[in-house]
Amino acid sequence: MIEYYSQEIHGPFHIWELGDFHLEEGGVLRGAWLAYATFGTLNEARDNAILIPTWYSGTSKIWEDVYIGPGRALDPEKYFIVVVNQLGSGLSISPHNAPFPSNGPRFPHVRIGDDVRAQHRLITEHFGIERLALVVGGSMGAQQTWEWAVRYPEMVARAAPMAGTAKNTSHDFIFTETLMDAITSDPAFRGGFYGHPSEVHQGLLAHAKLWTVMGWSTEFFAAGRPAELGFTTMDDFVTNFMFATFAPMDPNNLLCMAWKWQRGDVSRHTGGDLAAALARVKAKTFVMPIDEDMFFPPRDCEREQKLTPGAEFRVLRSIDGHLALFGADPAFLEQVDEALGELLDSPA
Amino acid sequence: MIEYYSQEIHGPFHIWELGDFHLEEGGVLRGAWLAYATFGTLNEARDNAILIPTWYSGTSKIWEDVYIGPGRALDPEKYFIVVVNQLGSGLSISPHNAPFPSNGPRFPHVRIGDDVRAQHRLITEHFGIERLALVVGGSMGAQQTWEWAVRYPEMVARAAPMAGTAKNTSHDFIFTETLMDAITSDPAFRGGFYGHPSEVHQGLLAHAKLWTVMGWSTEFFAAGRPAELGFTTMDDFVTNFMFATFAPMDPNNLLCMAWKWQRGDVSRHTGGDLAAALARVKAKTFVMPIDEDMFFPPRDCEREQKLTPGAEFRVLRSIDGHLALFGADPAFLEQVDEALGELLDSPA
Repeated sequence: MIEYYSQEIHGPFHIWELGDFHLEEGGVLRGAWLAYATFGTLNEARDNAILIPTWYSGTSKIWEDVYIGPGRALDPEKYFIVVVNQLGSGLSISPHNAPFPSNGPRFPHVRIGDDVRAQHRLITEHFGIERLALVVGGSMGAQQTWEWAVRYPEMVARAAPMAGTAKNTSHDFIFTETLMDAITSDPAFRGGFYGHPSEVHQGLLAHAKLWTVMGWSTEFFAAGRPAELGFTTMDDFVTNFMFATFAPMDPNNLLCMAWKWQRGDVSRHTGGDLAAALARVKAKTFVMPIDEDMFFPPRDCEREQKLTPGAEFRVLRSIDGHLALFGADPAFLEQVDEALGELLDSPA
Repeated sequence: MIEYYSQEIHGPFHIWELGDFHLEEGGVLRGAWLAYATFGTLNEARDNAILIPTWYSGTSKIWEDVYIGPGRALDPEKYFIVVVNQLGSGLSISPHNAPFPSNGPRFPHVRIGDDVRAQHRLITEHFGIERLALVVGGSMGAQQTWEWAVRYPEMVARAAPMAGTAKNTSHDFIFTETLMDAITSDPAFRGGFYGHPSEVHQGLLAHAKLWTVMGWSTEFFAAGRPAELGFTTMDDFVTNFMFATFAPMDPNNLLCMAWKWQRGDVSRHTGGDLAAALARVKAKTFVMPIDEDMFFPPRDCEREQKLTPGAEFRVLRSIDGHLALFGADPAFLEQVDEALGELLDSPA
């Protein structure tokens, strides 16, 4: 059996050493590293770089497979594209691969701001890039995109947070908590000291069912999309798509990301004042929610767009809901390409 | 401590003996009974009766408190209103109160059709009513309303299924399954052989969190409705409203209702042909979904309305979502009264 968090499945990716990385919550990731993938070539002016932070449970691989390619908006023939796997993702330092004893459930709490500070070091120290042509990400990647635009406003020329918010909502917080509870309530989880991750199969199955309920939309099922994707019954879809997606993942990794997701909030920079935080943004920003998203709904995103100088609101339409991000709806990808293409062509 | 399923809390209600009641799944409820409440007086023509079946976890009491009253559409000065508590509700025969040994997790599976057949006996045998002026119910009460209109078309003059469907969707099925999993995955559930229901507190808390995510709408939280209702934080709301609502209930009762909810489907009468089933309806029908409902969304309800002869589509608007049914939004109740008043005034 091939190890899931591997070059075989998620590569090729590169490793960059962060050393001992101090966290906003006060802990330290000792011997930390980022795993990242690049596409295209950095030009001499070093001004054609695009940064993409990853979403919950996803890695750089899905960006490579679904969003990046010649002729696409994210075109490696024009841009130098850096996809950085978030802390806890399983490729960058994470509970399952951290050195003992700060591994597993002892892995310290990580925040979106930690990801962005780590990425900032990679971008500036390793690549010598002073300004990014674009930061784009979906879901937790949108949280990191917003954090970039608020924390380093001079460095972000353009920003495209898709299907995610600058400040997480209380509703989204409790949804994420149900995902976490699904895992931790499995007796086999044993406080995070399970043997093999697959022992937590009941928890991972419950987690997959919750994603089934909230990840797509009611219309996704009403329209028979699971059948279109090759699944004959709801059980078949839950087992062979949703559970299959999450089953090989490490439960402590998922919990690390979920804790971080719950607390995404750029207003930490401004004493809780979201308007003041978003007023700092200098990037040309397209706020891109998905119309059928059940937990990052357009209305929540639009309130943030209105607080962001010069930002535009571009709703992506797909009955695949939040998980349109997976790329199973070609019309969705066309809309993403169109919006990102226009954004990249905008002066900034 | 007052017993939860009691006259003190849910009464006054009456008991009607069903005797040994045979179920669609093949089992028998031995020594079965229905608990019901009545308001108003049956007229001599016996044509002013309104039947209201209850929803998941709710009882006749919330209908008395929130929907029925002089000057309201459901006016006891004009109508004889019978609210029947569903099988498994805790007032009618249910896992927690059934005679040994068919109690607890040994209670047989009950279907929406069983409820409606039992109610039919109450209405015809006990009250001698041949035709109901209106059947109205919300959520699982809507499932029973649809079942009445399809199973006994000559008996239902008017029907108002609110926030519920005639045939449950696969999405709703899996949502309900997450509610069930939340309870059954608690080690204290012990296969349904817990001691006191409160031992299953982790399961009931997880169940309450899922209702928090799906029961309202994202906008309910964005608009600060929990604060308007007197709750200071999300934790406060989850603990002191949502958990408090479900905590005194019996887990096996909830599971009995949830299993039934998952399988609500009038097309069982017509070999799976929903259009044929709904074509049987003779009632003047107002299909009344709630615009922000996350699991009985208007689109699913509208498809059924279009299959129902002469049915009209009346969307109720409330950011309280599905749980607007609880009645915390006065504007929602006004809309319900307006629609039901118009329906009751329609010739049928």
